[in-house]
Amino acid sequence: MWADLAPVGRDGGAGGYRRYAWTATDATLREWFRGEAEGRGLDVVTDRAGNLWAWHGDPDADGPGLVLGSHLDSVPDGGAFDGPLGIVSAFAALDRLDRSAFRRPVGIACFADEEGARFGVACAGSRLLTGVLDADRARALTDDDGTTMADAMAAAGHDPALLGRDEETLRRIGTFVELHVEQGRALVEQAAPVGVASAIWPHGRWRLDLVGRADHAGTTRLADRDDPMLALAAVVLEARAAAERHGTVATVGKVRVRPNGVNAIPSAVTAWLDARGADAADVRAVVAAVGKAAGIDPVEESWTPSTDFDAALRDRLAETLDAPVLPTGAGHDAGILSSAGIETCMLFVRNPTGVSHSPAEHAETDDCLAGVDALTRVTEALA
Amino acid sequence: MWADLAPVGRDGGAGGYRRYAWTATDATLREWFRGEAEGRGLDVVTDRAGNLWAWHGDPDADGPGLVLGSHLDSVPDGGAFDGPLGIVSAFAALDRLDRSAFRRPVGIACFADEEGARFGVACAGSRLLTGVLDADRARALTDDDGTTMADAMAAAGHDPALLGRDEETLRRIGTFVELHVEQGRALVEQAAPVGVASAIWPHGRWRLDLVGRADHAGTTRLADRDDPMLALAAVVLEARAAAERHGTVATVGKVRVRPNGVNAIPSAVTAWLDARGADAADVRAVVAAVGKAAGIDPVEESWTPSTDFDAALRDRLAETLDAPVLPTGAGHDAGILSSAGIETCMLFVRNPTGVSHSPAEHAETDDCLAGVDALTRVTEALA
Repeated sequence: MWADLAPVGRDGGAGGYRRYAWTATDATLREWFRGEAEGRGLDVVTDRAGNLWAWHGDPDADGPGLVLGSHLDSVPDGGAFDGPLGIVSAFAALDRLDRSAFRRPVGIACFADEEGARFGVACAGSRLLTGVLDADRARALTDDDGTTMADAMAAAGHDPALLGRDEETLRRIGTFVELHVEQGRALVEQAAPVGVASAIWPHGRWRLDLVGRADHAGTTRLADRDDPMLALAAVVLEARAAAERHGTVATVGKVRVRPNGVNAIPSAVTAWLDARGADAADVRAVVAAVGKAAGIDPVEESWTPSTDFDAALRDRLAETLDAPVLPTGAGHDAGILSSAGIETCMLFVRNPTGVSHSPAEHAETDDCLAGVDALTRVTEALA
Repeated sequence: MWADLAPVGRDGGAGGYRRYAWTATDATLREWFRGEAEGRGLDVVTDRAGNLWAWHGDPDADGPGLVLGSHLDSVPDGGAFDGPLGIVSAFAALDRLDRSAFRRPVGIACFADEEGARFGVACAGSRLLTGVLDADRARALTDDDGTTMADAMAAAGHDPALLGRDEETLRRIGTFVELHVEQGRALVEQAAPVGVASAIWPHGRWRLDLVGRADHAGTTRLADRDDPMLALAAVVLEARAAAERHGTVATVGKVRVRPNGVNAIPSAVTAWLDARGADAADVRAVVAAVGKAAGIDPVEESWTPSTDFDAALRDRLAETLDAPVLPTGAGHDAGILSSAGIETCMLFVRNPTGVSHSPAEHAETDDCLAGVDALTRVTEALA
């Protein structure tokens, strides 16, 4: 399965992946998922949000079922594991089991647009499924070329008029377990190949529109300038300083400069702030400090409160697998489903460097196999 | 003429112009120039660099001639006057004169790619004409989409194999006078509608490749990060501080972030520094200070030493027009021709706000007409 996925959406430049939602690359990945599922005799259905579900058994008649899975899309120049590891491991776990022994239906989910790399809203597929993301707002989201999500979906063959909370699909999900490569080094420090997630930190994205006055770089006196690039510098430095003060993380990873000419003082700079931490009040304090440094109110593009996974399920998985329990700063579809009241948990597979969202993201083969083992035992226990 | 030019390359967003070299918009502008010239019975020729020349008389037989003109391309979101004012005024001046009285050929030049907005090298057309810009280097320059200048030229119908110092064209130019909107407020302070240029400040462009390590914005501890956005902040602040210390100007107007994802610590940020000043040593000191703040050596993409226009011509024009003499921090094709040993000078038309390279760039109609008057008298005197 890895060999089939390896070349899809691989970017020439940085060596990473560019697998954005509702693109031709995305269509190739979705076709791969459909082929793997149908090859195993699973029934593939697409929900209203465009997420794919491969079912063993009938979740309508005999459900709700146990669902494994993750996503196939990536951040810009992302790694090979974030997302695909959960789906490949789910298929591999199913291959190791005698499905006739299952007491309830078992599905594998392939969530659409988890990273939000194209339209700016992470976990768009699960947020649409649960109704947390408003259908009208989603349809109107635009990518950097001005294409709306509605047009991109339609071009990819999914009717955007279908968007909206999908009760029928939600009724089918009894339990969701998402396996994911760890995005930190807690498992390295604890010398464990697999861990169980306790919670997802509260996290959000804010946009800062820094407005100045376009002017000529060669002829405008320093005193006459209103240069928003200076405000960007203040934002970047205060994001780091405030995160240090409050014990959170904060990142300016995306910037847009207008007009972005070498000899033009910018008219405007837009910066996006990603902030997360164990405590929501600390995260809010960081955002407020950055806004104060910029002299504007940051626009909240998304906010996800702290998500605790199902405590009973978490303890049962940790006991079954004899695995450590750890929180994470990364958002996941599992967090969205958990917040929607579905019994949900996550497994993490050790990442030797902790690096993710990068071509250097990695997991050793032995650890990936340990992940498949773990997912197999979890499926045995829960199905 | 203004009415014909007004809609060409007008961008919906900021209200400014995006007239980049060797694009469809550029082709429309070049067609306009050709039409205006041919409508006046001028002979239009294209030189090896792709610059256009509209001649009254035969500069090969009776030259060298007097050349007026400027350029039609713009910076991103540029104004209506920077470039076009010089060409429109040249046609208007010719319309006021009895060409049969000319003692030598008179031409109007339309230089290609003056702003360097697409391929990063300002005055590319005049630099290629004079051989200051190497033909191989020019052909290999790429725009943000990875298109080379060679491919862009070929697509626009100009053979890139022709590039190289163009002796035949240079021999035709006896004197060059470029009229341009002022890009500062010196004429406002001196209450004069038109001025004569004394010199162009030394100026250059440097590229700073700030390299970090891509990683996940939510899960990577602050202490584990190597975030090049922090280096960008240091570059922006030091550019301003060093320019203040050394009495120059310095600008970071263009930035490229990789991968530019909200939840990804960047792997690399590229920043371009534009620095200029009355004294070359001060400009060099600013660039060195910015490089030191970034911990790298800035890559010099272009450097133009101080350019003094022809002193005798400058004094003659100032006397003819009773106009003040002033230096400028902006580069121009006139500076390139002057450095190549051609008798060259410039006229500036008052700019009420001093703003340029912006949709707010402006010159009052009366001042534009005073510019045409001045160019008419200069042509009378020199042709």
